[in-house]
Amino acid sequence: MTEHPEFNVLTATCPSRTSLARIANKWTAMVVSALGDGRLRFSDLRTTVDGISGKVLTDTLRELERDGLVSRHVFAEVPPRVEYELTPLGHTLHAPLRALGDWAEQHIEEVLTARETFDKRR
Amino acid sequence: MTEHPEFNVLTATCPSRTSLARIANKWTAMVVSALGDGRLRFSDLRTTVDGISGKVLTDTLRELERDGLVSRHVFAEVPPRVEYELTPLGHTLHAPLRALGDWAEQHIEEVLTARETFDKRR
Repeated sequence: MTEHPEFNVLTATCPSRTSLARIANKWTAMVVSALGDGRLRFSDLRTTVDGISGKVLTDTLRELERDGLVSRHVFAEVPPRVEYELTPLGHTLHAPLRALGDWAEQHIEEVLTARETFDKRR
Repeated sequence: MTEHPEFNVLTATCPSRTSLARIANKWTAMVVSALGDGRLRFSDLRTTVDGISGKVLTDTLRELERDGLVSRHVFAEVPPRVEYELTPLGHTLHAPLRALGDWAEQHIEEVLTARETFDKRR
């Protein structure tokens, strides 16, 4: 990873590794993919990212907001409505993260075959 | 994620999610990136992926081998030499995973600024 010689994720103390740890994460990949078509309420996100717990979704959104990838919009209604949206920076990550989901869907049959072969050898 | 309607990582029980969990991982991203230029011995991988523990590297390589992304070559020497290499399937993942590292290196300054702003608001 050489494009930005001043930062290198392969160096343990480089701050860019903390960002890689956040983005190279299955929940981040799914939440950012789900937000690609526009802002969503918490409850809609939780439905879209099937199986995510409320705590994991809360923590993931908070970390994405902290890293400047997601913005949070609170509407003064009763009960308060809260919506989440990709920031312009978050949008730059949408395609790379969606590529991982696409890869997983495209190649899962090969992966399952490889697992079967591997497990038989043990 | 719609290209392969039979598989959908957003569905909790879809097998493709188990593959996403393996590939959307910081250690996977770094190990696959490190293997992009060719096969490496365990000790060289451990040096290249600065800060990875022996146990995490062993576990990561084993899971990547199980999923058909990495192949393991054992040479009958004393002590035995073991090298790791991306499979053709693993090579298809190199560019998408390297893109995440590149993103982290390119955008870390924006991310750090966002974190500072976020933490000041608390």
